[in-house]
Amino acid sequence: MTSATAAPPPFPRRLVVIGTGLIGTSVALAAGRLGAAVWLADRDPAAARFAAGLGAGDELPAAGPPGGPADLAVLAMPPEAVAPALAAAQERGLARCYTDVASVKELPLARARELGCDLATFVAGHPLAGRERSGPAAARADLFLGRPWAICPLPETSDEATSTVAALASACGAQPVRMLAADHDRWVALVSHIPHLVAAAMGARLELAQADALALAGQGLRDVTRIAAGDTGLWTQILAANAAHAASLLPAIAEDLSAMAVALAGIAEGDEESLKRLTGLLERGGAGVARIPGKQGGPPAAYTVVQVVIGDQPGELARVFQAAGEAGINIEDVRIEHSPGLPAGVLELSVGPQAAAGLTAALAAGGWPVRR
Amino acid sequence: MTSATAAPPPFPRRLVVIGTGLIGTSVALAAGRLGAAVWLADRDPAAARFAAGLGAGDELPAAGPPGGPADLAVLAMPPEAVAPALAAAQERGLARCYTDVASVKELPLARARELGCDLATFVAGHPLAGRERSGPAAARADLFLGRPWAICPLPETSDEATSTVAALASACGAQPVRMLAADHDRWVALVSHIPHLVAAAMGARLELAQADALALAGQGLRDVTRIAAGDTGLWTQILAANAAHAASLLPAIAEDLSAMAVALAGIAEGDEESLKRLTGLLERGGAGVARIPGKQGGPPAAYTVVQVVIGDQPGELARVFQAAGEAGINIEDVRIEHSPGLPAGVLELSVGPQAAAGLTAALAAGGWPVRR
Repeated sequence: MTSATAAPPPFPRRLVVIGTGLIGTSVALAAGRLGAAVWLADRDPAAARFAAGLGAGDELPAAGPPGGPADLAVLAMPPEAVAPALAAAQERGLARCYTDVASVKELPLARARELGCDLATFVAGHPLAGRERSGPAAARADLFLGRPWAICPLPETSDEATSTVAALASACGAQPVRMLAADHDRWVALVSHIPHLVAAAMGARLELAQADALALAGQGLRDVTRIAAGDTGLWTQILAANAAHAASLLPAIAEDLSAMAVALAGIAEGDEESLKRLTGLLERGGAGVARIPGKQGGPPAAYTVVQVVIGDQPGELARVFQAAGEAGINIEDVRIEHSPGLPAGVLELSVGPQAAAGLTAALAAGGWPVRR
Repeated sequence: MTSATAAPPPFPRRLVVIGTGLIGTSVALAAGRLGAAVWLADRDPAAARFAAGLGAGDELPAAGPPGGPADLAVLAMPPEAVAPALAAAQERGLARCYTDVASVKELPLARARELGCDLATFVAGHPLAGRERSGPAAARADLFLGRPWAICPLPETSDEATSTVAALASACGAQPVRMLAADHDRWVALVSHIPHLVAAAMGARLELAQADALALAGQGLRDVTRIAAGDTGLWTQILAANAAHAASLLPAIAEDLSAMAVALAGIAEGDEESLKRLTGLLERGGAGVARIPGKQGGPPAAYTVVQVVIGDQPGELARVFQAAGEAGINIEDVRIEHSPGLPAGVLELSVGPQAAAGLTAALAAGGWPVRR
């Protein structure tokens, strides 16, 4: 924001959504719930009619929104389609501002510049939300709740356009986050596009596997490969639009897997150094995963957890906390796990690492089964 | 089963569980619920006491189970520990039969043979169940419900031992599946051990990533990497015990990732052939994932889904089914998806691929918004 005098535009009350797939229809549902007037269009008229039937808005008349340009037009389509759709929409004067929701940002911006689009009224955007199901039938008004929504204004982008899109993101329950398009593309390559390729490479190993082997599959395999079941055509487009960033990250993963294979072959021969190398590779993986923020966006916890078995007698919890308090222990977090049908549960007490030994001793002295 | 005359032994009513981690304690909880007497031991006495406190059984007396050998002793510990524990348990005469639950099977069997264990009374086993949390506090009586439980008898294994272990698996709600130990190890390398390494290799890329990049992480990255957050020490043991099988599968994945990197680099240069190669790699991934059986163990569905928007007027569903029936359509499966707070929902009708066009036309003619 370069101007401090202009009042921030309110949440866009008149919205056009072009592209009524999962994301477009979800934006329409969320905005409509807040009272916005929403007009829907899609290159497949049946899809727009379907979304309208769901209550996501009205079909966009050929003459444009009744009463003149909308506050904002959302272009909800794959990256390659954004710039031509923007040029057409600006030509028709559909709205005062425009945004897109495609999962890469440099390519649509570059193409829009090539096509001579007005970049003062266009803000490239990307809500980081999705489902493994696609299409309007999978849309949900709460799809964006608590998710980041990347907003990548250019130097020439108007403040009004930027804050209109930020207001839409906030109204949808998302957190608008401003960033450079180049940073966005590098970052989503790491946290979204590369995981997709890794899942696909794992999935490809199942193509010729014996059915008896697949019958042993558990939640782990399903989780690792789930996203590879997504729409292959859409993903080819997404990856192609971010090809250079994605290509740069893959060799390191391939090298780690090759190093794991070498270490395992060494272990099979009884080599102790290979065992250490494998452990080191696994620990780096665990350390990386631990850096993914929790769903609430906070940093990963650094507490030690002490577990104590508690019965369901009245006052049991109070007695545990009293014993902890008398030992001078500051308890940071509490969680109760209860197996169905059992008279006892497990109380998990999170404490600073230096307090864990004292708490364990205090509770053991009080007669509770306890472990760290 | 080589003898048709011996009656199958009943579910073991007197059970010893050695190793009260997640799996051992869950077996104890499940058997105890069915009325079995359960005695618990662990190399860490506090862990056994903790499990006993949870209601999983009584601590095993030093003299062994009161009243003589148990029907079955379950050795619930990592692969390397099984054979020594089996030798010690057989030396003490703890039970009439023995099994383990370790996630590889060739190594414990080979070690048990080297140690001179009685292989007539030992059945190598592996319930394919787990959680990302470990230890007795995470145990659940229903952990094995609907899961496969691999049972790998040797030619010298007695029928009594094999059917006792199968009876325990069934009693825990699992499906006992007989297989050769070598097949088991090859298959779990593919569906369990390799996914772990792939998740770790992806996770390692996050170790030095910018926090701003990680803030964009969604469910996809979390799912792909979740299992890499598991107990690194335990996983080193599991992988080391199945090193040769795991090592043999990794190079193909590393090669696919390298091929993806080459294709992406080609796409960045505008090469059309590279785009086709990337699509092909993604499609192989999707085809492999589609082969993973559903949670109910059935084959993947081969139906076409037709989606239709329905209002919540009384009789709306009946009218849809009447229209389908009049068009002569056989509906195989039905699902309703309803976004919170909306007056309309989506009815998903699964039909044979050849019936989809007719159903779509019939419903469109009836005025419903419909799409395939």
